[in-house]
This record gives sequence, structure tokens and C-alpha cells, in this order.
Amino acid sequence: MTFEKIPYKIYLTEDELPKFWYNVRADMKTKPAPLLNPATGEPMTFEDLRPVFCDELIRQELDNDTREIPIPQDIRDFYKMYRPAPLVRAYCLEEKLQTPAKIYYKFEGNNTSGSHKLNSAIAQAFYAKHQGLKGVTTETGAGQWGTALSMACSYLDLDCQVYMVKVSYEQKPFRREVMKVYGASVTPSPSETTAVGRAILKEHPGTTGSLGCAISEAVEAAASQPGYRYVLGSVLNQVLLHQSIIGLEAKAALDKYSIVPDIIIGCAGGGSNLGGLISPFMGEKLRGERDYQFIAVEPASCPSFTRGRFAYDFCDTGKVCPLAKMYTLGSNFIPSANHAGGLRYHGMSPVLSELYHQGLMEARAVEQTKVFEAAEQFARVEGILPAPESSHAIRVAIDEAMKCKETGEEKTILFGLTGTGYFDMVAYEKFHNGQMTDYIPTDAELEASFAQLPKVPGQE
Amino acid sequence: MTFEKIPYKIYLTEDELPKFWYNVRADMKTKPAPLLNPATGEPMTFEDLRPVFCDELIRQELDNDTREIPIPQDIRDFYKMYRPAPLVRAYCLEEKLQTPAKIYYKFEGNNTSGSHKLNSAIAQAFYAKHQGLKGVTTETGAGQWGTALSMACSYLDLDCQVYMVKVSYEQKPFRREVMKVYGASVTPSPSETTAVGRAILKEHPGTTGSLGCAISEAVEAAASQPGYRYVLGSVLNQVLLHQSIIGLEAKAALDKYSIVPDIIIGCAGGGSNLGGLISPFMGEKLRGERDYQFIAVEPASCPSFTRGRFAYDFCDTGKVCPLAKMYTLGSNFIPSANHAGGLRYHGMSPVLSELYHQGLMEARAVEQTKVFEAAEQFARVEGILPAPESSHAIRVAIDEAMKCKETGEEKTILFGLTGTGYFDMVAYEKFHNGQMTDYIPTDAELEASFAQLPKVPGQE
Repeated sequence: MTFEKIPYKIYLTEDELPKFWYNVRADMKTKPAPLLNPATGEPMTFEDLRPVFCDELIRQELDNDTREIPIPQDIRDFYKMYRPAPLVRAYCLEEKLQTPAKIYYKFEGNNTSGSHKLNSAIAQAFYAKHQGLKGVTTETGAGQWGTALSMACSYLDLDCQVYMVKVSYEQKPFRREVMKVYGASVTPSPSETTAVGRAILKEHPGTTGSLGCAISEAVEAAASQPGYRYVLGSVLNQVLLHQSIIGLEAKAALDKYSIVPDIIIGCAGGGSNLGGLISPFMGEKLRGERDYQFIAVEPASCPSFTRGRFAYDFCDTGKVCPLAKMYTLGSNFIPSANHAGGLRYHGMSPVLSELYHQGLMEARAVEQTKVFEAAEQFARVEGILPAPESSHAIRVAIDEAMKCKETGEEKTILFGLTGTGYFDMVAYEKFHNGQMTDYIPTDAELEASFAQLPKVPGQE
Repeated sequence: MTFEKIPYKIYLTEDELPKFWYNVRADMKTKPAPLLNPATGEPMTFEDLRPVFCDELIRQELDNDTREIPIPQDIRDFYKMYRPAPLVRAYCLEEKLQTPAKIYYKFEGNNTSGSHKLNSAIAQAFYAKHQGLKGVTTETGAGQWGTALSMACSYLDLDCQVYMVKVSYEQKPFRREVMKVYGASVTPSPSETTAVGRAILKEHPGTTGSLGCAISEAVEAAASQPGYRYVLGSVLNQVLLHQSIIGLEAKAALDKYSIVPDIIIGCAGGGSNLGGLISPFMGEKLRGERDYQFIAVEPASCPSFTRGRFAYDFCDTGKVCPLAKMYTLGSNFIPSANHAGGLRYHGMSPVLSELYHQGLMEARAVEQTKVFEAAEQFARVEGILPAPESSHAIRVAIDEAMKCKETGEEKTILFGLTGTGYFDMVAYEKFHNGQMTDYIPTDAELEASFAQLPKVPGQE
């Protein structure tokens, strides 16, 4: 094999690490719709949000205008423990596919949380510490976010209380143990520790929980303990802001070699990775400086972009959170039981929802057996065992590269490889044994879910 | 926090990756003792070894003279997929310990095998492929080596047959599944697929297996299938040669900033990591150019350096392998059932054994509860969740840094962080729950084991 001069991995130096997060909202002509108070139907104010979120994070959440927000030095120091993350040229995958396409991926899995979630966890924990708080509460499903937050809190000596969806708590004991190594307390949700948990347990004894339910418990726990606030790993504007470090680093690395991607691909659950990856590129597109093709990839079993409604909806099942305008499948929607990985949130980041609504990006839904096929193909040539979530992006990157093979086009493809699959071997085993199946919700199911969308003035 | 100018992580560029492995034997005045044919008591020749090992690997095994051995381009290309591995300045650990010592670690865990084992796996698989072989066989205990070999074979389209100690096969299904993702066949050992396996099963029905037994099976499987050879992940001279890349990269990174370590620390099971890490530094010591303090760290429950005999012994339980002169606890020695991690081999690399015997390095035995204390302390400030094996080195690095705190000495400490502990959460859980215990073999136990050492001319 002979390769070009572009290295396998492009690392920025620590001096080249971004000093600012980029706020894509500043370049959006139509801003994402504000969060609404479900009781009044009015936009949530700074004061409305203070019982739940840290002050500085509320400012970031509401700031649609400041383009660059400085990254505090303490956060930059923490970033140096695991960043810069490499931009990898997928030479081996290209050769395997015999494609003229050039494939790059930004790899965010080289840290113990196993994903990009740490980028926002440390920021949120830092602002909580800076405000003099005692601790934070959160929910976690598969466990990446809970692990990331426990790492950040351990570093800052901050208490960390994680509500983990009960079925994951029981089926993923190792994830739970990692969080405990970092000193977090992990409670299976629904639990007896909150009023909302007790109510759900009373109504549905034996339930194995859901992400929406764990969110409700974590929010209640934060609001009811002095010196605590709630933090969330995706969906929110502030999270996309912190995750812009992914795209900023990727862009800086590409710029070093004058590489311009034609297509940028990311998996999408709540949108934190996709939003972070595309932000600086989308900024150029919004400012009319350069055009890119953006592709969001979501599971066919949880297709919020491709089959959801663009409407105000609750962010949680317990309906204790504000309403957000987003592509949603309805806050009661839970993906089919055979769905293996993450990317199971019913809604989508309001920022990405607005960009998608404006036609500035595309979305594709893919079935999980096809996703695991791509994951295994990737692992065998590129070495890295990808997370099921990340493998959604791999699937479409391979599809696009194969299109280039047909047409002969030498497109440059960039995708986000958000994390590793070391805690997902049960799913890989099912795939291997031929026990993995696909499920696509029917139109009737979705219609039934949409029928429960909240009534909001000005919304059908 | 304010930090010095040395970055958190020193990465070499791909151009700076070593082009040669360094063979420390070339600088040893007293060479390691040769492998002996157990039937004749004579040194094993090239021809003797050909039924079991690849030709080029035998040449490397027997070569005590060539100082630098070129790394083939294909192996260097593979190395670029996950190397250079970073040299990390443990700023956060230093601050936590409030020590004047400067601590560096070479981190080898950023690849899917989760350890340094991949460095030799790709070399051994490459030479097998180059010789036109169909496949390789091996044994694995905890699973790092098996995973590494399956990754290398998958990349080269080579068949990979792994005999996995039965108790690990059953208790670590995820490790097994990772190997399957990479296309390896994994057989629980002892098995019905080999004569030696059948004999052991007949004699000890219900046995859960051992590393020595799995080695015997893998060797038989290689010798009985045309186009197959056996490969081993540690102990052998060739493995230390390949692993010298760890030390070469570490030294190159240190040299960039004119840093000279005072103490170099590595965990030691069969010696592959320790030997690789210290090789180029030991070369300088052997040539009289510079002095270093080297410390091997082993489990108190498997103390081959600190309590073993320097004697010829079998490399495997089934006694189908050649005899090696090494520090050994006896080929029947099996660490106590409460021993959690790897580092459970009864012997030690002949190269390291000879160096230790000459007083060129020290060794310390540490108890596992103290090791996990260090692991957790490290994880909480440095982010990385370390493997139990690697944590032996962390333990002694922290001990040495605390000595510096007492004396006020500003020593520079370098240690090898061989891998990550994502598949070791059962052990972490036991530690957390206070269920982890220590065990130190009694003198009587060891004497009984030594009594079974083979009779070799010139050996007591």
C-alpha cells in the first residue's frame, strides 16, 4: 500500500486547541424558537430557569447573538487531558471499499466516558462549581452521559447524582460501576426517592423505566435539594455550544491541509454530536461563504427528523420540563424494545430542528441491522470498535462512498465517530447470532403519539 | 491551576515514528540463556522451532546480536492506525499528591484491544501472512492478547484461532464477543478439539482451565494443521523486541523536551510491556552512557521476580513447549482464586530475568487492594480508567512520588500505562464493595512448586 502525504491522524497541538466555543445561533437569521413555560405558554425567562439550571448555563441557553464564547481556562485544562481528538483519514476503509472518495472521521471515543459527552459534562460541572453549588443531578440511559458527568464531577469535587433508566441499570452493570469508580451515586429509575418516581411506580408497578421518566426524577431531585442543579447531555442550545469544539477542531485540522469536505455526516439522537460537528461549517453556509451537504442519520425505529412533527412538545415524560419547539415523535414515544443502541430520544435539538426546517440539512433513517453491518466492516479495517450510535454515521458514510465509486466522483466525506462500543457487546452478539431485528413504527402508531402533543397557542 | 510549558500530552508525528525495533540483547554482555529442547537438553535450533513458529520470528527469537531490526512498512502503516501513543504528563496527579516529583506515563490503551499487546500482534500476524500461512493459533486469559491478535488477523485476512481459558470465556463474554467481531474463532480451554485438552478433561473433569493449559492446546492446534503456526503475546524475546516501540517512542518524546527520567516503572507479568518500555533506556545503561533506576512491579500473589527461582522451567502446563531459563514459580503454579487481574503467568521473560539477575533492575510485589486504591485515585484525577495490570505500575509510581514529597526531591518518574479497565468492572465492583481480598503464597506453597522444576544438566 502507498498512501498520500496526509497523515493517518491529524492532531492539533495544545496551543491550537480552540479558545472559544462557536454559537451557530448567532449566524441564524431565523433563531430557534424559545422554550415555553407549559403553565403560561410564555417564553421561559432567566428567572424561570434558575431553580433548575446554573446561572451561566442559562445565559448560554438564551444567548442567540454572541458568536464566540470564551472557554474558561479550567475547562481548557481539562480538555487537554483527552483532547485534541484526532481527525482520522480512513485510508484502510477507502481501500477496502475501492472508492475514489476521501473519507475522514473525527474520533471522540478516546476517553473513559467513551464518547463526546465529556465535552459538555466538564463545562456544565465547571459552571456549577463556579456558582458554589454542592452537586448536580442528571439522567442517563445507556450510560455515556452519566459516565462523562461523573468523571467531570470527580475532577471538580462536585457531588453527582445519576438517575439511570432501570432496564439499563440492570442490563449494564459495568457502566454503572464505572460511574461509581468516579464517585457518583447511581439510582435506578423510576425510584422511590422522588414524588414523580413514586407516582410512576404506583401507576406502572414493574416498569423498567424510560429516559423521559429519569429526566423527570433528576429535575425534581435538583429542585428539591439546596445547592443542586439539573444538567442535561443533549438537546439544549448550551450543549450544542459546548460540543462545537468537535467541529472547530475538525475544521482546524482540515484547514491545516487545505481539505474541504463536500459532505458532513453525523448521527442524531438529541443532536449534541451532530450539532457540534457541523456548527462551524454551518456557520460558513449561513454566512454564504461556502456550501456543504449536511446529513443527519437517525434510527428508523426512532425517526424524529424524517417522520416527526415540527412542533412544541414536552422534553420529558413526566411533563415537568419546559416545552421546546422541535422535530418530535411525541413525549410518550418509546422506541421498540428491539432497538439496541442510544439515539432513542423522542425529540431533537431546537437549533438543528430549525436548520432542518429551513432546508439547510438533510436527514436519513437507517435500520439497525444495516448499521451493525457497517460497524463490523469498519472495525475490521479501521481497528476501532464503534458505538452503535456512531455506526449510524458510518453506514451513511459508506453509502456515500459507494455512490462515488459508481459515479467516479472524488468527494471528500467527513463524519463524526462519536464513541466506542465496549459496553455494547450484547448488541454486537445479537447481530452476530442473527438475532437482531429491525422495526419501523407504523404511521398509525406515530399518529396516535402526535395526537398527544400539547396544545400551544399558534400551533395546530 | 497554572502549568509549565511541557504539554499534557506529547505526540510524535507520523514521520517521527520509529523505523527500527531495538534489540536490547545486542547490548547485553551476558546474553539470556537459550531455550532448551526438553527431550535432549540441547539449545533449540531454527529447525527445532519451525513446526511451531514462523521463520522470521524464529530468526528474531534467536538473534542476540543485531541491535536495530527494521520495522516492515506494512507494520508501520498498521501502527499509524493507533500510534504514536501519547506520552502524558500527569499534571493532575502531581497536584493531587502535592509532590515535587514530575510524573509521566506512556499510555498504550487507546486502541480497541485496550493494551500494548497490539504492537506485537500485528508483527507476528504480518510475518505469518508473509510466509504464506493460512492462520495462527494462540491462547488468551483475560483477553487482551486474543483481542489484539484477532484485530491484526482481521486486517491481514488471516485465520485466527484463540483458546481462551474457560473461566474467562464464561465470565468475560464481552471480550469473547469483541474477538468474534474481528472474525476470530474462540474455543473455551480445555476443549475436546485437542489431544492435550481431552487428556486434561479426562483427568480433571469440570476444570475451568488455566493459561498454561490453553498454551498447550494452541501449540498442538498449530502443529497439527497445515499452514498454521503458534503465536504468543509475552515472555519471548521476539515479543520484547516488538514492544521496544513503547520505549523508543517514549524516549523520543522525552528527548524532544530534554527530559531525563530518574525512575522507570512497569508492571510485569510475562514482561512484554516492561521489557518494551525499558529497552532503549536499559541499552544506555548497558553501554555505560547513562544510569536509570528500573522497577518491575508484580502482584504479591504471583511474585516470580521477588520470590521465584532463576531456573530452567517449562513455559506451559502441558509441558509441550521448550524450557526457558527465567524467574519462575514453577509451571504448575496458579495464582490464588481471589487474584483479579492479569499478570498471572508463572514465569518471566528470559531477557528481563537475566537483567534482574545481574542487578540491573529492581522488583517490587504489591497487593491488589493497594493496586485498586491507586487505580481509583488515578482514574479520578487523570480521567483514564486503568487496567488492573497497569495499576500495579501506578501504585509504585505514586509510592515513589510520595517519597519525593517527604524528601523534597524533584525526581522525574516515567511509568507504563499499558491499558484500560473497561472489561474489568467486576474486579472494580469487588474492590468497591469491600469484597476484594489479598493473598500472599506461603513459603511452603512455593517450595512445593519449586520441587517440581525439571531436571536440567547444570541446574540444581
